[in-house]
Amino acid sequence: MNFLITGAAGFIGSNLVDRLLEADHHVVGYDNFSTGQETFLERAKISPRFKLIRGDTLDLPALTAAMQGIDFVFHLAANADVRFGTRRPYKDMEQNTIATFNVLEAMRASGVRRIGFSSSGSIYGEPQVFPTPENAPFPIQTSLYGASKLAGEGLIEAFCEGFGFQGYIFRFVSILGERYTHGHVFDFYKNLLRHPAQLNVLGDGHQRKSYLYVQDCIDAILTIITKAQEKVNIFNLGANEYCQVNDSITWICEALGCKPELIYSGGSRGWIGDSPFIFLDTQKLLTLGWRPRLTIKESVLKTLTYLQENPWLLEARS
Amino acid sequence: MNFLITGAAGFIGSNLVDRLLEADHHVVGYDNFSTGQETFLERAKISPRFKLIRGDTLDLPALTAAMQGIDFVFHLAANADVRFGTRRPYKDMEQNTIATFNVLEAMRASGVRRIGFSSSGSIYGEPQVFPTPENAPFPIQTSLYGASKLAGEGLIEAFCEGFGFQGYIFRFVSILGERYTHGHVFDFYKNLLRHPAQLNVLGDGHQRKSYLYVQDCIDAILTIITKAQEKVNIFNLGANEYCQVNDSITWICEALGCKPELIYSGGSRGWIGDSPFIFLDTQKLLTLGWRPRLTIKESVLKTLTYLQENPWLLEARS
Repeated sequence: MNFLITGAAGFIGSNLVDRLLEADHHVVGYDNFSTGQETFLERAKISPRFKLIRGDTLDLPALTAAMQGIDFVFHLAANADVRFGTRRPYKDMEQNTIATFNVLEAMRASGVRRIGFSSSGSIYGEPQVFPTPENAPFPIQTSLYGASKLAGEGLIEAFCEGFGFQGYIFRFVSILGERYTHGHVFDFYKNLLRHPAQLNVLGDGHQRKSYLYVQDCIDAILTIITKAQEKVNIFNLGANEYCQVNDSITWICEALGCKPELIYSGGSRGWIGDSPFIFLDTQKLLTLGWRPRLTIKESVLKTLTYLQENPWLLEARS
Repeated sequence: MNFLITGAAGFIGSNLVDRLLEADHHVVGYDNFSTGQETFLERAKISPRFKLIRGDTLDLPALTAAMQGIDFVFHLAANADVRFGTRRPYKDMEQNTIATFNVLEAMRASGVRRIGFSSSGSIYGEPQVFPTPENAPFPIQTSLYGASKLAGEGLIEAFCEGFGFQGYIFRFVSILGERYTHGHVFDFYKNLLRHPAQLNVLGDGHQRKSYLYVQDCIDAILTIITKAQEKVNIFNLGANEYCQVNDSITWICEALGCKPELIYSGGSRGWIGDSPFIFLDTQKLLTLGWRPRLTIKESVLKTLTYLQENPWLLEARS
């Protein structure tokens, strides 16, 4: 099949590119390199079945041209800085909501009808049901990022109904693993390298979060687009467990051999719009036969090892 | 209090303007008159407490300037042509989603913190639970209009969390009554005037819909903003009943004294994205003490009388 991936040079995107190429597919990578890393595509660029397009999802003509001959679009490009929504509200609106609309319009103009979309568990806001299933009670948004992903989901669903699209909506927990470029492991590791005796922690450390290893995430994506064939296919992607921020700190510090003083900013949320408890019900995905390979602890430690082996990333994403 | 109403020259907007002026409030009406009718504001314009601004919600500087000194914004301006989303997808995106973002940003820049928003029962898509409560299972969108209203709700909720706003989200059924300018009563009456012997009906006539009289709708809005004081207040607004399209046709034809041949386009939906059954659970609103004055049948007949008394509207909105 011919795939196009927006955000192809990103964390999840570049891993997905590699996996699709390994499975003998043709892949067009589309990225504006605002946060993507060309290094992540070094292996892909060797393949004659890979084509890289430097382009922006806000550039509708370029995006439409890139869609020619494509069977399936993975729309992964996004502003993924969940924490900073209130600093720059328009960024989530433009980079996520309007960009997703453009991707759908480019597909419609080019006759492409299948789309996979990186949504997020943050669209559940602060849910009342744990683990939170896909058909949880109608949520109330708590972040501009979540609101922008909700808007993207709604657009995709409306295009499925209105224009005969087939949509795959992946509601991710936080993803960990090779090519991870931002998030708590990144921040903690970077800060501990500089100041091993002290670590600033957002919130009270008791926030409960779920994580998933990137290769398990991609296994899930490929399982879903193969086995689920509804008009709109919505799946939670996460581990069947969660940990506290403090657990993750313990694992990281043990691995690094440091015992920093922990300084908490306090409160049950790490930032405005942070959800103190994220734990998604993945029964629907498990029913398809998918199983994760790594536990959360293993994923955290694998991420740490990756960052230790790739010190350039700490500078590239500072 | 000082209110600003976007879409002030519209059906619901102009009725709300009049009611707020009657209650001694100050009102700024903001409208671009793309579909609004200046005639609807004739009574308001007599009041020294009313100010009309001709402006577009896409014009952020004008909108921000208009917000000075305002306590509460009713954001009612929208593309309300639910049926034509697939003809012009960008219209819902721009006029509803982006416009709502602009309203929120204009408020933030001007220090206005309370917003009431005209959402819609269509955001429930094709629900599985009837009557459909506000916390129904996470819906799947079936129309671009619904998707744009969902996006608007999410933005408002995120601004409530992120910037200390207080939000009122009104999920309306179809509204009927004085100054009604589009919808099935309008279409049926207009067509029967021209061709009393024949009436084309979208769908099979068995679509079940709920309606609400505009003054009952405004009673509900004013009750909610007075009595509900959560950060985010989401309310269904509808009658505690529904009717079939065929019922409404019978009422209208009896009133007009005609017996047209009914020609159905067929199918359980009137158009792509139409919901075959809309019936909202209004228990939350009833708990506040609100009660509707008119039944659906009375609302339909009152609307018909209004259209008969205002033949100019049939031309103005053709």
